[in-house]
Amino acid sequence: MSSPQSIQLLLECRWVLPMTDDQPVLEHQAIAIDQGRIIDLGPIDQIAPRYCAETHHRLTEHAVLPGFVNAHNHAGMSLLRGYADDLPLMTWLNEHIWPAEARFMQGEFVADGTRLAMAEMIRSGTTTFSDMYLAPEDVVEPIVACGMRAQLCTPLIDFEIPWSKNFSHGLDKTRALMDQVAPHDTLTLAFGPHAPYTVSDDSLAMLYKAQQSLGLPIQMHVHETADEIEQERAKTGRRPLSRLASAGLLGPNFQAVHMTQLDASDMALVAESNTSIIHCPQSNLKLASGMCPVTELRAQGTVVGLGTDGACSNNDLDMFDEMKTAALLAKGVSRNAQSLPAMDALAMATRESARAIGLGDRVGQLKPGFEADLMAVDLNALNTLPVHHPESALVYAVNSRQVTHVWVKGSPLLSDGRLTRIDEAALIDTVEVRRNEMSKEGTA
Amino acid sequence: MSSPQSIQLLLECRWVLPMTDDQPVLEHQAIAIDQGRIIDLGPIDQIAPRYCAETHHRLTEHAVLPGFVNAHNHAGMSLLRGYADDLPLMTWLNEHIWPAEARFMQGEFVADGTRLAMAEMIRSGTTTFSDMYLAPEDVVEPIVACGMRAQLCTPLIDFEIPWSKNFSHGLDKTRALMDQVAPHDTLTLAFGPHAPYTVSDDSLAMLYKAQQSLGLPIQMHVHETADEIEQERAKTGRRPLSRLASAGLLGPNFQAVHMTQLDASDMALVAESNTSIIHCPQSNLKLASGMCPVTELRAQGTVVGLGTDGACSNNDLDMFDEMKTAALLAKGVSRNAQSLPAMDALAMATRESARAIGLGDRVGQLKPGFEADLMAVDLNALNTLPVHHPESALVYAVNSRQVTHVWVKGSPLLSDGRLTRIDEAALIDTVEVRRNEMSKEGTA
Repeated sequence: MSSPQSIQLLLECRWVLPMTDDQPVLEHQAIAIDQGRIIDLGPIDQIAPRYCAETHHRLTEHAVLPGFVNAHNHAGMSLLRGYADDLPLMTWLNEHIWPAEARFMQGEFVADGTRLAMAEMIRSGTTTFSDMYLAPEDVVEPIVACGMRAQLCTPLIDFEIPWSKNFSHGLDKTRALMDQVAPHDTLTLAFGPHAPYTVSDDSLAMLYKAQQSLGLPIQMHVHETADEIEQERAKTGRRPLSRLASAGLLGPNFQAVHMTQLDASDMALVAESNTSIIHCPQSNLKLASGMCPVTELRAQGTVVGLGTDGACSNNDLDMFDEMKTAALLAKGVSRNAQSLPAMDALAMATRESARAIGLGDRVGQLKPGFEADLMAVDLNALNTLPVHHPESALVYAVNSRQVTHVWVKGSPLLSDGRLTRIDEAALIDTVEVRRNEMSKEGTA
Repeated sequence: MSSPQSIQLLLECRWVLPMTDDQPVLEHQAIAIDQGRIIDLGPIDQIAPRYCAETHHRLTEHAVLPGFVNAHNHAGMSLLRGYADDLPLMTWLNEHIWPAEARFMQGEFVADGTRLAMAEMIRSGTTTFSDMYLAPEDVVEPIVACGMRAQLCTPLIDFEIPWSKNFSHGLDKTRALMDQVAPHDTLTLAFGPHAPYTVSDDSLAMLYKAQQSLGLPIQMHVHETADEIEQERAKTGRRPLSRLASAGLLGPNFQAVHMTQLDASDMALVAESNTSIIHCPQSNLKLASGMCPVTELRAQGTVVGLGTDGACSNNDLDMFDEMKTAALLAKGVSRNAQSLPAMDALAMATRESARAIGLGDRVGQLKPGFEADLMAVDLNALNTLPVHHPESALVYAVNSRQVTHVWVKGSPLLSDGRLTRIDEAALIDTVEVRRNEMSKEGTA
């Protein structure tokens, strides 16, 4: 017998949920990790003897699964968590959120909000997030320092915002950002045009050209509310999605966020173009936007990922919470208790979210060759016992505080419940300083 | 100045949410508690000097509010948590839940499940629950030992179940149970007829007579699904609620659980009779039953309480989780982001739930004379900071693990995150023994 191979990390797990297309829950499995990737997975008694690991964990009460991919967030907004709630969308935006953003959301403020968001996300099992906010160049360093994987969507909109003078200026800044992002293999860049109602046909044409030349994906809020559809129809006689299709933008690299209002023509456009959907159920409920027909979309083969949206419209960044809401709401909306069963909800939060943001070939599943982005969840708790079926415990009963370990590229970001790269006490002090600044001048 | 009065407990609180009809969130308040009741509440600098307390807590980062009243539960079912999910209601009941109950759910099994449920409920801030399950006489002692307040609903149904041969036998056993419950001021008893479709007109007439003589409230599953209405209409040409009205049962002592299907005639019957509603949003979504029109019911002045339902159809007993779902779903269903704002959701989980189960004159609010049933929640956490508005943090962002203290009658059930009357490790061992018994013989 040959001597054991030296590797980075070996996990002995009570349960493993690989979240590949075909595998069920596995028991008493070991996962071998080296150079940031999964290299082996199988029964403990077969795998463990083959390797000598720098770090070796025995996770005797734990389920191990891919880290969550939070496919839609505005991380910097975490500093505005609970700043204003329970208001109609336009009052909320015009009288509270936009004035606060205009006053406070510059570089270091956004960076601090993003650090708070990442600390919360890591703590609750998220390893990758998509971000769309007002100072992308200021969050590159904090994200790299925290060790998370991220898709940065640049905020593109027709009018002036803290980041850009207009749409064209935003495209220029997106180009410039590519150089800043390029050295980091954990970061990808995307265009983040705000929404059909804030982006003109001319802007869409510029976006099309930019995408043809730069090859980046696009993430956009689309069909979030019924009003959005009505206004577009009144103005152009068309539905917003059909306008985007005419502009040549739909396709596997187009990530349509929200999509609560879909008629048969929309469903067909999505299916034909292989456009991806990002479902944000808690935000859609909280803002009374509508309910995305997840069951029908999945049935027609559409990739549907999951996101929390920003902390202002949720108000947490907890993907366990989001996944449970998605699983429950899908049943309620489709009037079918079999809709979005536990394993499908887990797939949506991991594999499907990764596919939706273009990382499906290396993130969101546990199998050899994939990135070692994963978490361990201790199921030995009052609220998850007895464990008749671990996938049910994870979707319908777990508390995100049961996440004990989180790794990205095999490197620990959370270890025995403690953040390894973020000084939590110092971060909490900073957040309090920021809150005081806001409350002195604030309108909340 | 007179010398300080000796009392049981003094709490200095960063925030207090009294949940009275008129008071907003208060800051830097003290609560004085003696002989199990709240005796004083006001600014710390005025209240603290008046008293010398046996126990004195400085809760500098905490919100203190009434303990939750979980107005509908089947506590013993916690041992079947996650036993079967994602199935149509009748398959789920006929092929999984009822066979498992018939095989396992006798006295000590039910008592163990109830202990598990109580440990989870205390841990997440619940001080009172309503129970409806198969062995009420076997849970009296465990409930008293754990220190929770409870309404026990006796399971009344036309056919044979582990508890009774038929409806009339169940009524006899309810009478007998009154003597067992009477010595305990933390326990109340109620009739728990299962549902209109399992209770005949003759049984309803017997129930009416029994209620006239015993004066107990009634809790019943009513209008849970559209099928229930259709079947009743096919059979009798009436809607189930109208049948209950004709039987003379509706009124302030009638607690109608679920109520997802309400037409104008039902709304009028509820309003005229002052019938209370118990809303179980997660269960209604998970079983695809429908969605209760909470906003309209509250607008017409109906008391609407909140319940988790049993751990099989949720699958946790976390009232924070339930409250968030109620607040979000009310907005989604009414298509109005202003529906059920944070303070109203908190009221539903505390004051209104207490009113719904007949305890509204002494539980669910923090004011002098009321029972000292309350909790402290540490808001100094990554997912609740910054705290712009504590009521928003509690409804939309908090994690139930942030509950640090729970008191019933001023006596601690949870102290610094530790259960005081339940040996958690021993309980977890017992649950594992029960799981093994089930999995050996089980059909899950």
